[in-house]
Amino acid sequence: MKQVALFGAGRIGGIHAANLAGLPGVQLKYISDPFAEAARRLAEKYGARADAHPDAIFQDPAVSAIIIGTPTTTHSALIQQAAAAGKHIFCEKPVDLSTARAQECAEAVAKAGVACMIGFQRRFDPSFSEAKRRLDDGEIGTPEMLVITSRDCAPPPIDYIRSSGGIFRDMLIHDFDVFRWILGDEAVWLSATGASLVDPAIGRAGDVDSVVVSLRTRSGRLCQINASRRAAYGYDQRFEVLGSAGLLACENLRPTAVCQMDARGVHLDKPEHFFLQRYREAYRLEIEHFFQQLETGASFRTGIADGVAAQRLADAAARSLASGQAVVFD
Amino acid sequence: MKQVALFGAGRIGGIHAANLAGLPGVQLKYISDPFAEAARRLAEKYGARADAHPDAIFQDPAVSAIIIGTPTTTHSALIQQAAAAGKHIFCEKPVDLSTARAQECAEAVAKAGVACMIGFQRRFDPSFSEAKRRLDDGEIGTPEMLVITSRDCAPPPIDYIRSSGGIFRDMLIHDFDVFRWILGDEAVWLSATGASLVDPAIGRAGDVDSVVVSLRTRSGRLCQINASRRAAYGYDQRFEVLGSAGLLACENLRPTAVCQMDARGVHLDKPEHFFLQRYREAYRLEIEHFFQQLETGASFRTGIADGVAAQRLADAAARSLASGQAVVFD
Amino acid sequence: MKQVALFGAGRIGGIHAANLAGLPGVQLKYISDPFAEAARRLAEKYGARADAHPDAIFQDPAVSAIIIGTPTTTHSALIQQAAAAGKHIFCEKPVDLSTARAQECAEAVAKAGVACMIGFQRRFDPSFSEAKRRLDDGEIGTPEMLVITSRDCAPPPIDYIRSSGGIFRDMLIHDFDVFRWILGDEAVWLSATGASLVDPAIGRAGDVDSVVVSLRTRSGRLCQINASRRAAYGYDQRFEVLGSAGLLACENLRPTAVCQMDARGVHLDKPEHFFLQRYREAYRLEIEHFFQQLETGASFRTGIADGVAAQRLADAAARSLASGQAVVFD
Amino acid sequence: MKQVALFGAGRIGGIHAANLAGLPGVQLKYISDPFAEAARRLAEKYGARADAHPDAIFQDPAVSAIIIGTPTTTHSALIQQAAAAGKHIFCEKPVDLSTARAQECAEAVAKAGVACMIGFQRRFDPSFSEAKRRLDDGEIGTPEMLVITSRDCAPPPIDYIRSSGGIFRDMLIHDFDVFRWILGDEAVWLSATGASLVDPAIGRAGDVDSVVVSLRTRSGRLCQINASRRAAYGYDQRFEVLGSAGLLACENLRPTAVCQMDARGVHLDKPEHFFLQRYREAYRLEIEHFFQQLETGASFRTGIADGVAAQRLADAAARSLASGQAVVFD
Repeated sequence: MKQVALFGAGRIGGIHAANLAGLPGVQLKYISDPFAEAARRLAEKYGARADAHPDAIFQDPAVSAIIIGTPTTTHSALIQQAAAAGKHIFCEKPVDLSTARAQECAEAVAKAGVACMIGFQRRFDPSFSEAKRRLDDGEIGTPEMLVITSRDCAPPPIDYIRSSGGIFRDMLIHDFDVFRWILGDEAVWLSATGASLVDPAIGRAGDVDSVVVSLRTRSGRLCQINASRRAAYGYDQRFEVLGSAGLLACENLRPTAVCQMDARGVHLDKPEHFFLQRYREAYRLEIEHFFQQLETGASFRTGIADGVAAQRLADAAARSLASGQAVVFD
Repeated sequence: MKQVALFGAGRIGGIHAANLAGLPGVQLKYISDPFAEAARRLAEKYGARADAHPDAIFQDPAVSAIIIGTPTTTHSALIQQAAAAGKHIFCEKPVDLSTARAQECAEAVAKAGVACMIGFQRRFDPSFSEAKRRLDDGEIGTPEMLVITSRDCAPPPIDYIRSSGGIFRDMLIHDFDVFRWILGDEAVWLSATGASLVDPAIGRAGDVDSVVVSLRTRSGRLCQINASRRAAYGYDQRFEVLGSAGLLACENLRPTAVCQMDARGVHLDKPEHFFLQRYREAYRLEIEHFFQQLETGASFRTGIADGVAAQRLADAAARSLASGQAVVFD
Repeated sequence: MKQVALFGAGRIGGIHAANLAGLPGVQLKYISDPFAEAARRLAEKYGARADAHPDAIFQDPAVSAIIIGTPTTTHSALIQQAAAAGKHIFCEKPVDLSTARAQECAEAVAKAGVACMIGFQRRFDPSFSEAKRRLDDGEIGTPEMLVITSRDCAPPPIDYIRSSGGIFRDMLIHDFDVFRWILGDEAVWLSATGASLVDPAIGRAGDVDSVVVSLRTRSGRLCQINASRRAAYGYDQRFEVLGSAGLLACENLRPTAVCQMDARGVHLDKPEHFFLQRYREAYRLEIEHFFQQLETGASFRTGIADGVAAQRLADAAARSLASGQAVVFD
Repeated sequence: MKQVALFGAGRIGGIHAANLAGLPGVQLKYISDPFAEAARRLAEKYGARADAHPDAIFQDPAVSAIIIGTPTTTHSALIQQAAAAGKHIFCEKPVDLSTARAQECAEAVAKAGVACMIGFQRRFDPSFSEAKRRLDDGEIGTPEMLVITSRDCAPPPIDYIRSSGGIFRDMLIHDFDVFRWILGDEAVWLSATGASLVDPAIGRAGDVDSVVVSLRTRSGRLCQINASRRAAYGYDQRFEVLGSAGLLACENLRPTAVCQMDARGVHLDKPEHFFLQRYREAYRLEIEHFFQQLETGASFRTGIADGVAAQRLADAAARSLASGQAVVFD
């Protein structure tokens, strides 16, 4: 029985706690959160302890892995503490808003010889991973072009926007990871632009809420990402990859398969509301993957190096938006 | 904490065990199956006991409800024993292949004052129940016509066919229940025909494998059911209800949302393979419903009377097929 | 240049006139309608003569074929006159409301040695005929079951209902033809029921507006037809045929491919409004087929025998509805 | 009766000839093509003259309008000749590969006071124009982002590529026009990149075959265009526009509505094969529009200024691709 500790008892922590509880061979021993009441309630639900100090958790030799679902600003410190304590690590994206600090984390992890997986859950979405499998199996030939649509149902509070690191580091980092994963290649050229169209307060906070990004890879593969902080019709999460012999498109998921027809038209459900619903199964599968790979010693589908690489692209996109010019990578 | 016993450790028993394990406030205390090894393995997985004799289970005052997932021939005896012991009952369809015996069960349950729910899980399918909700909310006006498509992915073994009670009692009983539920009315006229087209061995076993049934209700609403023991493209489970102001159609579910386009065409996934996949969520929701209604004392969405009523329609369909003529109900 | 005469300058006559005008090698010489003004206007548009008496038209040796798009009651007389005059015939369905008279027409045509095609335009619908082609090519194995959905957008005026011959002869005759065409077999058993749900005035006129029909063929193939005089969401014209190796489904057509998503859901266009829109291309193709087959002497996809056969099924359905019992064919 | 002359008897000339023949009130008097045999054959089919010299056509006072469907290099000369002769002009895109010469044409047309429409037929596609209508009616609020997918089924011959002016001027000019039309705004920023992935010969000819373009408008609206010279699954012509209150997406059209399901999956038709099929109705409607607007004196949906504006964007995209940097408009 693998004993694990969960840091963070918020929305994403709750998801990880439920998935950990359902995993055979895994025991959720500790839940830690500065907001003690949240930790206590979640711990009670899943038979974990909420009263241990973080230091005590790191010193408990029975704990072999930690799950980090805390605010971004605390990620790097927790990763480094865990690495120092010899614990394996699952950490939500991003590693850190500073790519330099993220790189330091990667080095600490490497030095400590622990395993570190980053929570790019989209790679575990059943539709996305089936598309990737078919692409790798050559079902549409050689990949040439990727179009990613990534739209939140509604913008977060302005306070969150202010500390988010900007739309590229907060939101598109997932899309940059999908770009690297699906095309299996690295960017040599990136161009981004954007505007504040959804809410002028986002603009006043120094960010944009609507962006388009183009990338070209070493082998000339092309990618377009379009993203918005708002889609009135729900969470819009699609991509399509064009290959020399066809196309693979991942469409949105819908809560039910009901089709209503009436005098106004033919009506289907809106897409799943937001990430908790849309990626429910992906969150379950990524945690399962984490423990499976720990078991066998195989590498993660999304290691810390992937976390760092996606952040570099987010940084580049921010620079391109600011300068109005393309960024060329070495 | 409600303590419950599960009878039957086969395929459907395994589903119920997993769902019971995930229900807060419910403890799966016993699993009973004449095939002791199956019971033992399932009990181990979910921390239940597999070594208690059925009599001991019925005598355990801590057990307030039993879940019956055994072969059909044992249902009525278990229902009557449970009723006599004052236990609430969840029983898989059908109550009994003999409608007379099913009626006796209904009377025993009523006399004992216990609650008895029949496992017509389709009423708990999220798409089907959403369609029913909209129908009841008047979104398509008054219902006029229902078309049910019900096709298994492949026929069961001939041995199963022989003891199944025939396609109407074994397979269409679900569709007859959907008919009563969706149209909210009782049949006054039924006509059925069929043929053995899938496998001549089914014909030699005295059954048919492809059937069409028409029904008319007291208020003149119409229903068509078409069913086959085989659909080469997977489990086909749809219905559509025409109302005075529109149509509600429940389409098949697909494992992924991947759409592949290539030189041969545009390709989507086949429907979910069979009932274990297609109705996974429905099985979870029906057990949740069972305990919720027990808690509040409210009636079940699918009581034993519904079980008996569906069987009467199955009997009538069998008579109509045999005689080649319609059956008129009083 | 083939010279032809068109009888009937109403809605369907207008369609045929336009399609004849677009056919190379065909000259629309006469248009005849007791309502002279309609004939005159249509003739002017397409450069035809509207002033010739029917007798003169039949006596004009330059006219080799006539197109009949007049009210049903006049069909049989026109067919017999045309046959006597040695003209080839294209006639709208039905041949006649009396199957006996329809049979007499078939005999007159045979005796005169002229060609006679009946306007079952659905066999020329590009989707329906592509489905038939694939079925014949064995793409889904052997056909086993056919489900036809046939719903008008709105009922015709009560006066029309009264003289229509009833819903089976007026509306389902097309579906009976599709049944014979798609399954490639003849009925041995038919059962029908129905109700007046759309408009009580239809019931008072002695007809029903909502019907379900089941059929079984010589080789045991099954068919279900459901039909209504009203679908609030537009003209609903679908069928699906289940085969031993798969399914072929013809879905509705939509005016545009626009998909709108908003806070209320995902919205597609309603199906094409009614038969003039839905079967626009089918009407064009059937007339083209008529002249192509005349040219080569090959038989029509829908000969007068098909017209008579469909009417026999309509008669049987009317008897079944009236008696409440199935009709068995020799 | 308006008399018109058609220049060009090739593929697109054939389409225009057929559509002109079907237009009431329009007479196709002349067809002119240096390849006399093509002109003769087309003229014979539609009752036009093919033997007149271009000068004679321009001097014929009965001719009020000319339709130009000749190779691009001849457009500007024909436009200027027609303008000088006082004829109204319908000209296929592009006006000229040189934007300067295109601008001269616009000035000649303005000076002559003749009407000049450019054949951006996509604005007449029923789905695209319905989307535009709903956008203008505010059905999805204010437009924010446009994503255009534009992929040919297969690349043209290398010889054509060489004289095409490059992928932006030849192919994306349509998409640049859609961008201006749908977003109703002008570009202030454009960034393009591309690669030769489909065929290295295209690269050797100095062009690319796969491109992505981003645009930002004066009011901050964003647009992404992705285009390829090859889509193995057919002609892929879609766009979607995100607004503050929803999304309007134009999906591909399919030849039939047949859905086949079998052991391999669920299969739909590929999109319409290429532009002749996909835009058949659009070509008909644009010519109808041309004569309607001439009749009423109202302005065209796609005037020569639109032709020039789209070419400026194509020029800018070519510069951006070459330099690797964004182009900023005044």
